[in-house]
Amino acid sequence: MNESTVIVPGWVGGDVDLREVGESQVASFRLASTPRYQRQGEWVDGPTSWFTVNCWRGLARHVAGSVRRGDAVVVHGRLRVDTWTRDDGSTSTTVVVDATSVGHDLNRGTATFTRPARRDPAAAEPGPAVGPPVEPAAGEQGRPAA
Amino acid sequence: MNESTVIVPGWVGGDVDLREVGESQVASFRLASTPRYQRQGEWVDGPTSWFTVNCWRGLARHVAGSVRRGDAVVVHGRLRVDTWTRDDGSTSTTVVVDATSVGHDLNRGTATFTRPARRDPAAAEPGPAVGPPVEPAAGEQGRPAA
Amino acid sequence: MNESTVIVPGWVGGDVDLREVGESQVASFRLASTPRYQRQGEWVDGPTSWFTVNCWRGLARHVAGSVRRGDAVVVHGRLRVDTWTRDDGSTSTTVVVDATSVGHDLNRGTATFTRPARRDPAAAEPGPAVGPPVEPAAGEQGRPAA
Amino acid sequence: MNESTVIVPGWVGGDVDLREVGESQVASFRLASTPRYQRQGEWVDGPTSWFTVNCWRGLARHVAGSVRRGDAVVVHGRLRVDTWTRDDGSTSTTVVVDATSVGHDLNRGTATFTRPARRDPAAAEPGPAVGPPVEPAAGEQGRPAA
Repeated sequence: MNESTVIVPGWVGGDVDLREVGESQVASFRLASTPRYQRQGEWVDGPTSWFTVNCWRGLARHVAGSVRRGDAVVVHGRLRVDTWTRDDGSTSTTVVVDATSVGHDLNRGTATFTRPARRDPAAAEPGPAVGPPVEPAAGEQGRPAA
Repeated sequence: MNESTVIVPGWVGGDVDLREVGESQVASFRLASTPRYQRQGEWVDGPTSWFTVNCWRGLARHVAGSVRRGDAVVVHGRLRVDTWTRDDGSTSTTVVVDATSVGHDLNRGTATFTRPARRDPAAAEPGPAVGPPVEPAAGEQGRPAA
Repeated sequence: MNESTVIVPGWVGGDVDLREVGESQVASFRLASTPRYQRQGEWVDGPTSWFTVNCWRGLARHVAGSVRRGDAVVVHGRLRVDTWTRDDGSTSTTVVVDATSVGHDLNRGTATFTRPARRDPAAAEPGPAVGPPVEPAAGEQGRPAA
Repeated sequence: MNESTVIVPGWVGGDVDLREVGESQVASFRLASTPRYQRQGEWVDGPTSWFTVNCWRGLARHVAGSVRRGDAVVVHGRLRVDTWTRDDGSTSTTVVVDATSVGHDLNRGTATFTRPARRDPAAAEPGPAVGPPVEPAAGEQGRPAA
């Protein structure tokens, strides 16, 4: 509880590193996020912020199999600021996101999605066996013209 | 200003509908979101919530070219609750998300990403010409061991 | 898991209702959220969205003791869309936020805060006994001039 | 566009600093956020993350008039990671939130709210003149029993 949550759209700045941690897996990558805003009618880049993104369990393996350096992604997760001391006594700070979800940013390109053929026992949690639910009829009526 | 913002993980419950609106395009789809929680040690599904998701400009065309019925996605955007009157005088309510971003949910499967070959003039805003930034050396030092 | 999360700034549209639910308490209120945007240089109101906000445990009692009809608040929590059938067979929809946090919106006015004199056993979770942490010296150096 | 957004619950770790910036005002404070989680049935504190929070326009003045060292607040805004070079050549990192909203965290205590007596010309944007909207009758019917 009492967690900080963040949504970061950005570019993957390096390779994805997949490691074993005990009986689980973690996939990590560096993420660069650069806001854009209008100044006097022109789009300009703001300064780039860098994050370390950690993914766990099923998300770790799917990210390792899907995300490449240079991909545009959106990351949602818990944020923390790690401050630590180097060997020379100076301090350094890393901003870390423990990801709840990762997806390619469809503002920036297209993607094709593949669901696992069978229930994945390493997924974050078991999902429904038969895929997405079917909407009741009233919901379709509820769809607005625009 | 004063907007409500939402993050919805869910399954695409129907086909994506791409339409011309003035000089722009909008892609719409229905999204079903079903939370899961543990009750007495077992994972159970909560009730399903249904949303209408609207995507604009470059996001609209990329979603139309990427998202299929049954895909797992994560949607981030502005939330509104539309209440309207049917022909018979009864009222109906539709919950709408005007999407800021859409991506496939890599908790649920894998995806391959393709960037447009050239600058896309219909993108939401012009992006950097040469792709993701290169991290300065200090950032790599900042990567924690775990 | 797989939850939809939302942030809603709005006005409290009715009285706060505090009820006993088993051994816990729930405080509920109706919340109206009206986005504002610029059209041809003028600020205009968009349509108002209505939500039911539920608060639990310590948050319930603090909200019941703090929030009044007409207050401006920001609510963060889990979103769900409840569709149910009336006695006459028609369906109705309520959009519900199970609140993680509630605070008065300091864009809209001022507020004075009072911490409980003693550890509150009904709080959402036990907090640190002695209040906020003291920042290490390096953090103060890290404060930018602007 | 392409911004990172964050929600941070935390404790105010210092005094609020209100400054003139051109024709506007900015209020800044340091914020400490400490997640709590259960380990073997006991609540324990995680490491504390520190942020610099900047507030602008009407929010700046209301925060300066409302927020004190030791208050519990929830901050919503845009996140950036500033890395800069000290006089001795070493680098330092500050994590900054440009606040969209700030409110006292009613999980942690109670608060009383005061709206400005008159329209505040320095507010972030002009609001409706007559306060919160009145809910139509159908909405009240839509209120669930629990």
